[in-house]
Amino acid sequence: MKIAVLGTGMVGQALAGRLDELGHDVVVGTRDPQATLARTEPDGMGNPPFSAWLQDHQGVGLVTFADAAAGAELVVNATSGSGAIPALEQAGADNLAGKVVLDISNPLDFSAGFPPTLFVKDTDSLGEQVQRAFPQARVVKTLNTLNASLMIHPKDLGQESSVFVSGDDAAAKATVTELLESFGHTDVIDLGDISTARGTEMLLPVWLRLMGALGTPAFNFKVVR
Amino acid sequence: MKIAVLGTGMVGQALAGRLDELGHDVVVGTRDPQATLARTEPDGMGNPPFSAWLQDHQGVGLVTFADAAAGAELVVNATSGSGAIPALEQAGADNLAGKVVLDISNPLDFSAGFPPTLFVKDTDSLGEQVQRAFPQARVVKTLNTLNASLMIHPKDLGQESSVFVSGDDAAAKATVTELLESFGHTDVIDLGDISTARGTEMLLPVWLRLMGALGTPAFNFKVVR
Repeated sequence: MKIAVLGTGMVGQALAGRLDELGHDVVVGTRDPQATLARTEPDGMGNPPFSAWLQDHQGVGLVTFADAAAGAELVVNATSGSGAIPALEQAGADNLAGKVVLDISNPLDFSAGFPPTLFVKDTDSLGEQVQRAFPQARVVKTLNTLNASLMIHPKDLGQESSVFVSGDDAAAKATVTELLESFGHTDVIDLGDISTARGTEMLLPVWLRLMGALGTPAFNFKVVR
Repeated sequence: MKIAVLGTGMVGQALAGRLDELGHDVVVGTRDPQATLARTEPDGMGNPPFSAWLQDHQGVGLVTFADAAAGAELVVNATSGSGAIPALEQAGADNLAGKVVLDISNPLDFSAGFPPTLFVKDTDSLGEQVQRAFPQARVVKTLNTLNASLMIHPKDLGQESSVFVSGDDAAAKATVTELLESFGHTDVIDLGDISTARGTEMLLPVWLRLMGALGTPAFNFKVVR
């Protein structure tokens, strides 16, 4: 499938790399490709610059948000929460119309330090905001409840764990579920319409505290039933 | 141990019954014991009246919130979220001072229908509100992330699942953890201080949507790591 991954951070790299490995035709979208390629220093978290990642993934292109979305059949939103709607606006509503938008972003607000709070919650969600902003897109919220490496290699945990899909379009959820299964996910739970993203986005506060208590992000929730 | 369970609903009945069965000296606290005993109709959810439950649990007493707390070494808050602080106020700060308060309540707001929203979240929690209102109490938030029957019989799921404790007092968390283990819980995760109750209380939105998607409340989260 022709897939655009919007965002060059850890989540974007993880998704783009895994999708490329699985044989998809992948481009990464960024605001300014030249500026992204010009960065040669590690980011604030010590991760290597995107240009280094790109050298290891010769099959993946780097283009603008708009060019990435224009050529894609499916768009992955792997931007930060506050960057999600601006990035999708640059991608362009016309380029998203009719397409599956796999939205991973979380509405984290770091303005008061760590742990972050949520800039939308409870009576609304970022998933719903994206769907409202791009009514022609077929938004599916998923993968926002685990860390980047487990998103793409869930079997690394050695035990089955769960992921969730939320969206208004059943066919879009089926497409996303198939992708998730190709990553190794074996327990994909359909929570219902896009408003159920309120539930998974509100998992972040306990996820962050679990990371603190366990001393690692290498965990995931399994819904035991 | 002498234990007071505040609240006569499903959670109160479950906890009081299990603690009685395990050999503790249990009283249930309610606002007005005569009024509670006088109700002979099922509640709005079709559950039998408390008087029927009490007949099956001859070892358990029913007294006022204040009398229950006064004689107890440990107090279980099994009231509804909006009823928590009023019930504890009737129990009396002096009767709670120095005691472990095992707080199960969730800040659910049903005023706009189902699913409920949360009346406190993200930057504060009901657990913290209880601790601030009763600074001498040793509040431990726990068991608010699963349904009443699994709280007391977690092994019914047939697979291990997780519960969480949040609180400022390490000895109080140890006492609560021991109680949880006596119920059959084998994965009790200490999230940290009482502010981590924000995380577990914000699990309710996804819990409620999972109940809808799965068609049953008989599930629980396992933190796979």
